[in-house]
Amino acid sequence: FTYDFSQYTIVSHVFTLGYAAMAAGLVYFVLTSRNSLPRYRLSSTLSGVVMLSAFLELLVISQRWDSAFRWDGEAFVQAGTLFSNGYRYMNWSIDVPVLLLQMLIVFGVTGAAFRRGWIVFTVAGLGMIYTGYVGQFHEVERSAPFWVWGSISTVFFLVILALVYRTVYGNVGRMPAEVRPLVKAVWWLLLGSWMLYPGAYLMPAIWDSADGVVARQITYTVADIVSKVVYGILLAVIAQKVSKHEH
Amino acid sequence: FTYDFSQYTIVSHVFTLGYAAMAAGLVYFVLTSRNSLPRYRLSSTLSGVVMLSAFLELLVISQRWDSAFRWDGEAFVQAGTLFSNGYRYMNWSIDVPVLLLQMLIVFGVTGAAFRRGWIVFTVAGLGMIYTGYVGQFHEVERSAPFWVWGSISTVFFLVILALVYRTVYGNVGRMPAEVRPLVKAVWWLLLGSWMLYPGAYLMPAIWDSADGVVARQITYTVADIVSKVVYGILLAVIAQKVSKHEH
Ligand SMILES: CC1=C(/C=C/C(C)=C/C=C/C(C)=C/C=O)C(C)(C)CCC1
Ligand SMILES: CC1=C(/C=C/C(C)=C/C=C/C(C)=C/C=O)C(C)(C)CCC1
Repeated sequence: FTYDFSQYTIVSHVFTLGYAAMAAGLVYFVLTSRNSLPRYRLSSTLSGVVMLSAFLELLVISQRWDSAFRWDGEAFVQAGTLFSNGYRYMNWSIDVPVLLLQMLIVFGVTGAAFRRGWIVFTVAGLGMIYTGYVGQFHEVERSAPFWVWGSISTVFFLVILALVYRTVYGNVGRMPAEVRPLVKAVWWLLLGSWMLYPGAYLMPAIWDSADGVVARQITYTVADIVSKVVYGILLAVIAQKVSKHEH
Repeated sequence: FTYDFSQYTIVSHVFTLGYAAMAAGLVYFVLTSRNSLPRYRLSSTLSGVVMLSAFLELLVISQRWDSAFRWDGEAFVQAGTLFSNGYRYMNWSIDVPVLLLQMLIVFGVTGAAFRRGWIVFTVAGLGMIYTGYVGQFHEVERSAPFWVWGSISTVFFLVILALVYRTVYGNVGRMPAEVRPLVKAVWWLLLGSWMLYPGAYLMPAIWDSADGVVARQITYTVADIVSKVVYGILLAVIAQKVSKHEH
């Protein structure tokens, strides 16, 4: 595709929003991690890990965008390099297991249930991401592999969602009453924001134009900010309230 | 436009002032956050968030400026990329909600009033910014959308100002006498510095030249330093004095 001025710059702006939000989140998590009891602090640390890795990924992707097109006086056209969303999948393979692990920590899951949850989340998470990664190479011609790999990936996604649901609703009863609405909010926030990723995967199939690319990057950025930053803040607030309660 | 040597370098210098001020602010807020009681510390943390995200935005915008023009022996002319102010809007969508949230924290607003304030500030803030963002794409030809979106954005702005006024004057009576002048100063500082942003939005309409661009970037930078750094310091000082009082 070629992009007109506003299409091109919107994408560039949105990337900047993305990595600035990650950097801002990093400051927040570093400075507030001492507000909770030591056993929950690891969650803030892990949010920090997510922030830094996502910051780097979005910085790289944004620089790639800037260098992949140049202004020819009328439109932005392909320059010497190619733009690719594959960097996102690499980032997810760090962030998805870590984000799910945080949930186990903050909800106070321990022992065998913790180990089981961690293994399922990690294996299914990586399974979901790498099968999707293979599939996205076929997004241009949208041949059978695009759909087959996407479907396998979706199976893993459903496994993850089922376990998240069980983790949230299986533990909410044990948590202090005042944080229960927040705990349930974790489920809805995760469900809503994670669904955006398969939505973005499908976008070239339903909206195959420069505007579709713009919409896709906006979707990814909203999803990233909600699933990483807002989610992390929500868990941090829960950890802080639970810590006060146990004090 | 093309820019002569001093026009071009003034803008470049002013950007450097902008991001250096944010970096300096970051150091200040990190190092002084322990001077207040824990319940006010979040305000310093949030100032840190604002500083880092604004630092990145101004760094990006300044690099874009540097690469968007080159010296042709007589003047600075358009090079391969285009310069755009849209990055600012992305940054505002992080900073505006956070700056307003800080006010609620430092003025000791709690419970339902806190939640209501936060929601109104966030929704109206994002409404103001994204409608303005859409409008600024029309700043070159200044057609109807420029004025329509700008007006909608202004409505949100007035909602915010009204709530800020109520927050300041509704809480000043509860605060210790010695900080009251500072609390009122928050209102005037916010009013004065935030008004510069719509002023900068209008500038291409009233002063459509290279000098106008220079004036606009100076305006933005002054507004950024006052509304983020000076404002944050003022709130930090208030929090510190109130903490001493409550001790
Ligand atoms: C179901 C499905 C997908 C799901 C991706 C998800 C759910 C990604 C979540 C990423 C997160 C939360 C990253 C945060 O850092 C893919 C791989 C797009 C491929 C198509 C099918
Ligand atoms: C009224 C109005 C605007 C107001 C912008 C404001 C008030 C921005 C404030 C930004 C701040 C405080 C950033 C600090 O980080 C726009 C969007 C220019 C569009 C035109 C109408």
